[in-house]
Amino acid sequence: MATQTETKNNSFVLSGVKNIVYEDRPIPELKEPYDVLLQVNFTGICGSDVHYWQHGGIGEFKVKDPMVLGHESSGTVLETGSSVKSLKKGDRVAMEPGIPCRRCIRCKEGYYNLCSDMRFAATPPYDGTLAKYYILPEDFCYKLPEHISLEEGALLEPLAVGVHITRQSKLKHGDSIVIFGAGPVGILCAAVAKSLGASKIISVDINQDRLDFVKKFTAPICSTYVSQKISAQENAANIIRENDLGDGADVAIDASGVEPSIQAAIHVLRRGGSYVQGGMGRDECTFPIMAACIKELQISGSFRYSQGDYATALNLVANGSVDVKQVISRKVKFEEALQAFEDIKDGKGIKVLIAGPE
Amino acid sequence: MATQTETKNNSFVLSGVKNIVYEDRPIPELKEPYDVLLQVNFTGICGSDVHYWQHGGIGEFKVKDPMVLGHESSGTVLETGSSVKSLKKGDRVAMEPGIPCRRCIRCKEGYYNLCSDMRFAATPPYDGTLAKYYILPEDFCYKLPEHISLEEGALLEPLAVGVHITRQSKLKHGDSIVIFGAGPVGILCAAVAKSLGASKIISVDINQDRLDFVKKFTAPICSTYVSQKISAQENAANIIRENDLGDGADVAIDASGVEPSIQAAIHVLRRGGSYVQGGMGRDECTFPIMAACIKELQISGSFRYSQGDYATALNLVANGSVDVKQVISRKVKFEEALQAFEDIKDGKGIKVLIAGPE
Amino acid sequence: MATQTETKNNSFVLSGVKNIVYEDRPIPELKEPYDVLLQVNFTGICGSDVHYWQHGGIGEFKVKDPMVLGHESSGTVLETGSSVKSLKKGDRVAMEPGIPCRRCIRCKEGYYNLCSDMRFAATPPYDGTLAKYYILPEDFCYKLPEHISLEEGALLEPLAVGVHITRQSKLKHGDSIVIFGAGPVGILCAAVAKSLGASKIISVDINQDRLDFVKKFTAPICSTYVSQKISAQENAANIIRENDLGDGADVAIDASGVEPSIQAAIHVLRRGGSYVQGGMGRDECTFPIMAACIKELQISGSFRYSQGDYATALNLVANGSVDVKQVISRKVKFEEALQAFEDIKDGKGIKVLIAGPE
Amino acid sequence: MATQTETKNNSFVLSGVKNIVYEDRPIPELKEPYDVLLQVNFTGICGSDVHYWQHGGIGEFKVKDPMVLGHESSGTVLETGSSVKSLKKGDRVAMEPGIPCRRCIRCKEGYYNLCSDMRFAATPPYDGTLAKYYILPEDFCYKLPEHISLEEGALLEPLAVGVHITRQSKLKHGDSIVIFGAGPVGILCAAVAKSLGASKIISVDINQDRLDFVKKFTAPICSTYVSQKISAQENAANIIRENDLGDGADVAIDASGVEPSIQAAIHVLRRGGSYVQGGMGRDECTFPIMAACIKELQISGSFRYSQGDYATALNLVANGSVDVKQVISRKVKFEEALQAFEDIKDGKGIKVLIAGPE
Repeated sequence: MATQTETKNNSFVLSGVKNIVYEDRPIPELKEPYDVLLQVNFTGICGSDVHYWQHGGIGEFKVKDPMVLGHESSGTVLETGSSVKSLKKGDRVAMEPGIPCRRCIRCKEGYYNLCSDMRFAATPPYDGTLAKYYILPEDFCYKLPEHISLEEGALLEPLAVGVHITRQSKLKHGDSIVIFGAGPVGILCAAVAKSLGASKIISVDINQDRLDFVKKFTAPICSTYVSQKISAQENAANIIRENDLGDGADVAIDASGVEPSIQAAIHVLRRGGSYVQGGMGRDECTFPIMAACIKELQISGSFRYSQGDYATALNLVANGSVDVKQVISRKVKFEEALQAFEDIKDGKGIKVLIAGPE
Repeated sequence: MATQTETKNNSFVLSGVKNIVYEDRPIPELKEPYDVLLQVNFTGICGSDVHYWQHGGIGEFKVKDPMVLGHESSGTVLETGSSVKSLKKGDRVAMEPGIPCRRCIRCKEGYYNLCSDMRFAATPPYDGTLAKYYILPEDFCYKLPEHISLEEGALLEPLAVGVHITRQSKLKHGDSIVIFGAGPVGILCAAVAKSLGASKIISVDINQDRLDFVKKFTAPICSTYVSQKISAQENAANIIRENDLGDGADVAIDASGVEPSIQAAIHVLRRGGSYVQGGMGRDECTFPIMAACIKELQISGSFRYSQGDYATALNLVANGSVDVKQVISRKVKFEEALQAFEDIKDGKGIKVLIAGPE
Repeated sequence: MATQTETKNNSFVLSGVKNIVYEDRPIPELKEPYDVLLQVNFTGICGSDVHYWQHGGIGEFKVKDPMVLGHESSGTVLETGSSVKSLKKGDRVAMEPGIPCRRCIRCKEGYYNLCSDMRFAATPPYDGTLAKYYILPEDFCYKLPEHISLEEGALLEPLAVGVHITRQSKLKHGDSIVIFGAGPVGILCAAVAKSLGASKIISVDINQDRLDFVKKFTAPICSTYVSQKISAQENAANIIRENDLGDGADVAIDASGVEPSIQAAIHVLRRGGSYVQGGMGRDECTFPIMAACIKELQISGSFRYSQGDYATALNLVANGSVDVKQVISRKVKFEEALQAFEDIKDGKGIKVLIAGPE
Repeated sequence: MATQTETKNNSFVLSGVKNIVYEDRPIPELKEPYDVLLQVNFTGICGSDVHYWQHGGIGEFKVKDPMVLGHESSGTVLETGSSVKSLKKGDRVAMEPGIPCRRCIRCKEGYYNLCSDMRFAATPPYDGTLAKYYILPEDFCYKLPEHISLEEGALLEPLAVGVHITRQSKLKHGDSIVIFGAGPVGILCAAVAKSLGASKIISVDINQDRLDFVKKFTAPICSTYVSQKISAQENAANIIRENDLGDGADVAIDASGVEPSIQAAIHVLRRGGSYVQGGMGRDECTFPIMAACIKELQISGSFRYSQGDYATALNLVANGSVDVKQVISRKVKFEEALQAFEDIKDGKGIKVLIAGPE
């Protein structure tokens, strides 16, 4: 313990809109018997981190006080509370970064991602994981098998997002799926869909480089479509025709958040198909509601992840189904984190990992 | 048989936009061994009948050739095919008016309402039931128990619509539900929701008379809200506050098809709540897609009815759960059908039944 | 507080097989901020209480140390922890008597009844509720509306058992159901099934008095069958024929735990029907496994209750669907509890409530 | 057509217990517009074929009149009815060998495998597919992609059985599964489970050769256990301990039909786990019903296959997930079919295919 308390808790703090500072904060202490003190090893940058940095808030979540950013992390166990049994010092873990209340109806029904008292890393007012130390309860730490690296461990967070979205879609083995948006989430949804037995994956984006990546990443069942400036019905008709989808796709996922994609996704589906809104965008859009009604579509939102999603993500990486290492564009030191944020803001790379701090 | 063939098949035919003619058509003949020839006794008027009459089409369905209207009917068995076992001459039945192909994937999955080869009464190019005679397969005829009248039998059609919508919502015993639109479908959804154990029903409309009806029809658990010309969020907030719905309603159904209702329905729901689009309206609307995403709503379209819905509707009437007689505003003779159509167009009454033709 | 600590915590303690003693135990103290101190008002006697008393254990659960009995209770709030918001002193509540760990996979999936670290009242080594004071977390206290009595509140426990069993059966509106065993749980399952829209309920037992009770309790849709000393197939065939069940019942529940009932239940079902094992009995039985296989039955165990069951039970009582007062055979004082246990052991009455202690 | 009618319809006929004859039967003719006349290319031998041959019946199904055996077949289209659109002469297809009535409640609910009017090949009184010609409706013929052989096409039948069993288990990605019985069905269930993302497969049998096969067939996630003559609990405890299954397996499937396996399967499961009875055996067995109750297991029978299973089987073969060719022990000529039946009866080989007749 002595060595730990001597080390400062270096943190990457959003102190105001477009204003990042590095702070040495107090090292957090174990409070509950199930708490685990972790040293953070790697943290990925999420679009939401960039959005908080640039705009100071997302929807109803406003950053009022300085807040540590980051929530896609892996770490190493430093200390465990008295009731912790499954982890010991030195264990390497993926960190699920949101702690629900465990008491409300949603929590007890099995939907803790919908808990209204959730304390989620880097969602105001809760500090994130871009710091040297972080505390999580034992059950939100996922021990990594020996053959899984800490870099891969950090990637479990966006992969769990993809697992949750794809599960919401109720994709069945053999289904065709169209995924709008080929950013990190869209790419990982495609990988999950492949691992669940999708027969055809069609990735749709306006960025050819991203489409090339996802096509290779989920070969040989992935084809691509460059979204065109034509009507949503026409884009949908093109996708159906080019991919021989008959009456339409079984499943569509939006991982883009933009209106033309949402509209095309509804039109691309067969009767009784399912749609998931995974991408974040403007509050409202023009929506083909009658098509959804008459085709009796099953539509679901998707928000973060809940029980089983992290474990599934880990299993997908552990059994070789999803090679998340491929989505790591590069790794930077903690001291270079701000530049990495700039790069992500400018659309450079898919996923950048921040190492440390040391 | 002799007496039948002498009788002409008097039919209520839409021969062009706003152009109704009465025609004596040939009496249909049994073709398949499971066919049943029925004499139609009562037919309710549906909004879609009025819409075809006034506009000549609904969405992609265009009336090109003269078409008999009507699809909410009860009848009496006149003749049965060689394989029919469960029905005999004189049996009184509710008539489920759409025959699926029974062979496509949707049919064999249990979603025959999504069959793309459906032959549905009074959906072009298929003739409806407002005629003296009509043929249905045995399994689409629901024998009425002695204590259920033929008038009630005709009402099973809109009740089955309400059953299907409510089932799509996955309403559980004890759930709260907000129903937008207090026309026949909204009213019957409320009755079904009550019979499934809803704890609170809130009916929303702009027509106080309709609200008064549904409040009494589903007393004592129904309260009402007159939709106001304020934002959808404000209407939703009012509904939540007035009805003590906490984080929001468990279930919302739109049976109106209008944009302000659809928007308010999304905002009135709790996290993880469910929404069904049951009402028909304009193809597109401005939709609060991010609220649906972040609250992880479960949204479904609802189209007609499928296996079990008619049987449930019959059970609801037979066991006294839903007194459909109350929604019958009046009965008219076949010769007065056109005037009845005019009345429904003008918003007079809830449900008008046409008797006969004799 | 002073008055409370002066009051002794009079408790009904099983100190060994067939050995009950009254003890004055320490008054429990609030430990967690969500804890609520309750004064117990009424407690029903469950078969498991009697079984522990007579045999010192049930299956793997052995009573090693003296243990307070009782777990079907209602109470009044005396004191609340610092985080409790929904309850205040004087509130009357139904007491859900098992506290899960909230952290294991089962808990977070929404099946807290399957938590392996459950602390359940009067399941060794955890003390039960037959005492003056008891502590529960806020979220396991269900505030009673004004028109619901504390006696009814105590009955929510066995009703929640019936709710859980019936939910496991996935009974749909209009389904037929055969319930084996007309003890308290079988009776309450019948009431729940009626409230969920069962079209026919057939109650099966060897005790005509119990059958008469349930028939009246769930009139007019309940018929009865006195189980006969013939083969299970023959009893099943009789039930099907007498009740016009066609290919068999949609749902069967065993609330008896005895082999002939279990066997007849499997044979009474239609293809694709569902079965729930709700009754406790001998570890093994001769089971018609091939009938279950070929008819592709959906079979489920049922153990206690989980999220939503207590709330549903309360809603059923509050909206008048289930009049639980009818199952109360009589009420006795705390000092007479032992005699009440004797009566239940001897099969006298359906449900006996113990008041107090004062 | 002329050439066809000249060709005789050589058939492999069970004319009595243990009595096979070759007969030249009339060539079947198209009756319905959706009918397809097929020349049978390959037929696998199923345990049920052998059982009918040796015993003259299975359960309630008794062979009264001579009946053609065989139902695991692929064929080539010779002639199509007037309404057939998706197939043409020369197309190679997998043949789903049971035609439901399409009209009963079960059919319209999506469970056509539970149709009580099913006409299933080689289930009395319906002739099987071990003949030169066979007629099926278009929608029960699955066109094989070019890279899939007719031999593989014949294997889709047992693979569809495995798909259906595994689907009944509701296996989720990452689940552990224990499969009792390593015959063709158990082997194929293991392959399906792997393709659906099982994290661990444990195959249990008494035959080391079969275990070796399945271990290699579903490497690297399959381990094996040789069932021992100890109690079911002890076998279950061994399986759990050796495979680090914690509280027990998520899923267990019995593909053996024998009592010790069924018992061990129930004991090997965790709380809330699921079990499927896929194997056929004696009508009754001693069953650990209280374990099933208290652990709240989800148990299902599995009977043949329904909508989607054949398509999934084809997708699994087409995308390389399941290499069914490996389970073909050898191929024989039609004239050698009787010897092949003898071999299967004697437990030689996994799956034998009969070619032809020419």
